[in-house]
Amino acid sequence: MADVQIIDVSPRDGLQNEPAIVPTEKKKRLIEMLVDSNVKKIEATSFVHPRKVPQMADAEQVIKQCETFGEIEFVALIPNQKGFERAKQTNVSEVNWVTAATETFNCKNIGMSIDENFGQFKTIVQESKALNIKICFSIAVSFGCPYEGEVAPAKVISLVERAAEVGVDRIGIADTIGIATPKQVKQLLAEVMQVVPSIPIAIHLHDTRGLGLANAYAALEAGVNIFETSVSGIGGCPFAPGAAGNLATEDLVYMLERMGVRTDIDFEKLLAAADFAASLTSNQPLGRIRQVEKRGKCK
Amino acid sequence: MADVQIIDVSPRDGLQNEPAIVPTEKKKRLIEMLVDSNVKKIEATSFVHPRKVPQMADAEQVIKQCETFGEIEFVALIPNQKGFERAKQTNVSEVNWVTAATETFNCKNIGMSIDENFGQFKTIVQESKALNIKICFSIAVSFGCPYEGEVAPAKVISLVERAAEVGVDRIGIADTIGIATPKQVKQLLAEVMQVVPSIPIAIHLHDTRGLGLANAYAALEAGVNIFETSVSGIGGCPFAPGAAGNLATEDLVYMLERMGVRTDIDFEKLLAAADFAASLTSNQPLGRIRQVEKRGKCK
Repeated sequence: MADVQIIDVSPRDGLQNEPAIVPTEKKKRLIEMLVDSNVKKIEATSFVHPRKVPQMADAEQVIKQCETFGEIEFVALIPNQKGFERAKQTNVSEVNWVTAATETFNCKNIGMSIDENFGQFKTIVQESKALNIKICFSIAVSFGCPYEGEVAPAKVISLVERAAEVGVDRIGIADTIGIATPKQVKQLLAEVMQVVPSIPIAIHLHDTRGLGLANAYAALEAGVNIFETSVSGIGGCPFAPGAAGNLATEDLVYMLERMGVRTDIDFEKLLAAADFAASLTSNQPLGRIRQVEKRGKCK
Repeated sequence: MADVQIIDVSPRDGLQNEPAIVPTEKKKRLIEMLVDSNVKKIEATSFVHPRKVPQMADAEQVIKQCETFGEIEFVALIPNQKGFERAKQTNVSEVNWVTAATETFNCKNIGMSIDENFGQFKTIVQESKALNIKICFSIAVSFGCPYEGEVAPAKVISLVERAAEVGVDRIGIADTIGIATPKQVKQLLAEVMQVVPSIPIAIHLHDTRGLGLANAYAALEAGVNIFETSVSGIGGCPFAPGAAGNLATEDLVYMLERMGVRTDIDFEKLLAAADFAASLTSNQPLGRIRQVEKRGKCK
């Protein structure tokens, strides 16, 4: 039994910013390698409008491919009600709704105000439950926003309370642009967990400024045990300037296992998935374990 | 008034592993840039035998150059009594004695047993004090050893107690090969501070596996506020396989300042020093802030 749950978001957050379209077959292969390394939950795609994120235009096909992988839970991001209409036609296990903590980011990311966005969310929650699709509520730019700067914890807490009232299966606190510090992470997550003690809380981490692992440790110290990361640290949000790279799943797994926190993930197989993920992107990946190995000094 | 003290060790730990000899003039320039960025304590060189580490053969000249920099404290590493005999002829402010936590590392690093090594240490402490040279005692491979594996905290604590008995100005706990986890750092440092509450404790960090900042945060959580790092993350120990790169000073300063922990360091000038340090080495530097900027995504 694992002590923590790791949701690899590389097929979605890792690839969505990639300018060259990655063929569905290769996305399937990445997912297969993640499954093979024993990752139990994967954010596979996003039901976003293909004009907005052409890389995710094959969302239905990706989820269809995932059906062959058995017991694994597949998550799809949904930015709005239309996304849900598409998602519910598929066999997706869970939808991940995203609302930003700031009006400007919400407007740029999803094209509506927080209230409109939340209104749409409320209309889909009951249907989602009736269809036995788990529903997760993620709060983008929970620590800092590329447009509005530092985000007051009260804004995040207010959204957490509203989501809890509606009823959700998980709440995700996202450091969308990798600007959080360990101090912020520990304080905000402790407060969130106090406000909604019975809802599982996930932390979504980017490693833009190298603080990803420190933030993961701070989250763990706060009592959070669900992490959203990408193999090889690929990724970034197309609407979030500066959001280079998720925290690398393999770096997190390395740290956790070394601290005696069980992930149940096969590390060697995860490294193979990380190498494959890196080969799909044009950016040099950020994962540290692999980088240092390439320096030829870390045996 | 700064909340923490940062000892930049790049002229010593950062350069000692560099195969091409860096001219004394360039070492002076690096030190000057560090001084200019308001780093108040710098480990400038090592009085190690020139045959063992040819890069440090100019130790006397380096310390001589430092005399022009005024109020800054300059530290020199000394591996043995002979090193102290050389150091005391100079104007060095502080000597940093190194004993390893494991017999094998001590033998490979310093060529004697821990007891012999400690015996030499005891003989120089009084003289050092009489000469008004501060004396620091550093414990290498405090968390893990490339030859003996994981290091039992009891071994470190025993050396801490012996050093405290002799009387030292600071005790350094070194993660020489960058193998520590935040959990280990927090636990060991908390124990050390409990055992010797009145002696300042420093943590010496490497970033070999990307855990440097997480470990620095854990050290801060344990109450430690003296950090040994290298600009640009250059460095590594010639006798410690796998010891690639100290934690980058600029990454630490970035994290600390963002958390409201004052360093009093001029960040832009520190980045300039980091770039200069990187230009002196053959290895690609590990500092994250600069790496990410070079990806062109982190503004």
